[in-house]
Amino acid sequence: MNKKMNLLVFSGDYDKALAALILANSARELDVDVTMFFAFWGLCLVRDPEKATSDDKTLYEKMFGMVTPKGPEELPLSRMNMVGLGKQMLLEMMEDDKAPSLTDFLNGARKKGVKFYGCKLSVDVMGFKPEELLPEVEIITAKEYLSDALDSDMQLFI
Amino acid sequence: MNKKMNLLVFSGDYDKALAALILANSARELDVDVTMFFAFWGLCLVRDPEKATSDDKTLYEKMFGMVTPKGPEELPLSRMNMVGLGKQMLLEMMEDDKAPSLTDFLNGARKKGVKFYGCKLSVDVMGFKPEELLPEVEIITAKEYLSDALDSDMQLFI
Amino acid sequence: MNKKMNLLVFSGDYDKALAALILANSARELDVDVTMFFAFWGLCLVRDPEKATSDDKTLYEKMFGMVTPKGPEELPLSRMNMVGLGKQMLLEMMEDDKAPSLTDFLNGARKKGVKFYGCKLSVDVMGFKPEELLPEVEIITAKEYLSDALDSDMQLFI
Repeated sequence: MNKKMNLLVFSGDYDKALAALILANSARELDVDVTMFFAFWGLCLVRDPEKATSDDKTLYEKMFGMVTPKGPEELPLSRMNMVGLGKQMLLEMMEDDKAPSLTDFLNGARKKGVKFYGCKLSVDVMGFKPEELLPEVEIITAKEYLSDALDSDMQLFI
Repeated sequence: MNKKMNLLVFSGDYDKALAALILANSARELDVDVTMFFAFWGLCLVRDPEKATSDDKTLYEKMFGMVTPKGPEELPLSRMNMVGLGKQMLLEMMEDDKAPSLTDFLNGARKKGVKFYGCKLSVDVMGFKPEELLPEVEIITAKEYLSDALDSDMQLFI
Repeated sequence: MNKKMNLLVFSGDYDKALAALILANSARELDVDVTMFFAFWGLCLVRDPEKATSDDKTLYEKMFGMVTPKGPEELPLSRMNMVGLGKQMLLEMMEDDKAPSLTDFLNGARKKGVKFYGCKLSVDVMGFKPEELLPEVEIITAKEYLSDALDSDMQLFI
């Protein structure tokens, strides 16, 4: 039977999202089953940049949707972001090394069959509509996440 | 035998504390044994807001006790705190969805038999007195934490 | 057979580095095998402060090398750093309690046989030369890290 890795992606930082997706892609290449559970800020990574909507949201939910990153490339760095300057520096260095971008790693994970879950409570509180997220994202509860995670060989909170 | 989850709560952020306590409550509802080890900033979550004291502390310990959050509701957000504005927005959105508050989840965890540990070294260095913490919190060393964590089915660093 | 702990050190924060190294030292004292995988900002912890170089680096890599912490004692706090003031307060409180410093814990981990790995992709992108890192650090890929981590009894992302 395959080994299994479970990542809880809580952070909405560009660099941490990169770490999570590099691990997910690498694990799939080793034939390890991978599930990612996106909660709180982590949901910003799986927002579809084309599908942000304000329909049927409270005022706070509208505001929140507007001030948070809409998809992978808008995420800020966890440190040294410096109004985007540090992030630009990182992106240039990644390009110099021909390293794939965050979006490349995200699409790689989608193609390689990483299982994507979104946290029900977070989606409800933040007012994200399921149709604003990538189509692969299945909304589940914290209990469902736990049942899955407890059955994995390794779990990380990122 | 029951499954067992071990959380090391290092962070003193409102949103991460919320994540940790939602996991702890959900795990107990699945009959999973849960231990939480509060270290560094994480200790702020289990300070009893009514029992802060300056007695028998060095100057630094007094200052530190004053500038750090006294209990769950004073914790800031890990991002977008914006002098409390982002946190207020989150709280309003939680209320709109009738989601329980951080204090509700903390009290839920206490009632459901989550085992609370405090890190001895952190308590010593930060100068917190055991009587300033919730009565459930038992002070243990990093080694005792590790023995417990290594016996668990899943461990997270939050 | 010994139990085994695997830490992925992503963070470049002084307090989180302290937590990681306290766990590593304590685990070794319990005869637990320990591997630490330093990625992204975490690499700053294992830079040799004496050996920073600008040779054979792109302009971005030079800038990046200059603005990031050169070794353990230059790491900032994850919160309340306040231009170094909060960190100074923590250091004074640690000294008052005769707690070992971050460098002490780092050297302890080196002496106790903790296995140190550096992330190949991070080293490449950030432009760190292997000779700028502590001699114990072996550069490996994310896949090699995963194979090691999946074989461990506990894994944390710090």
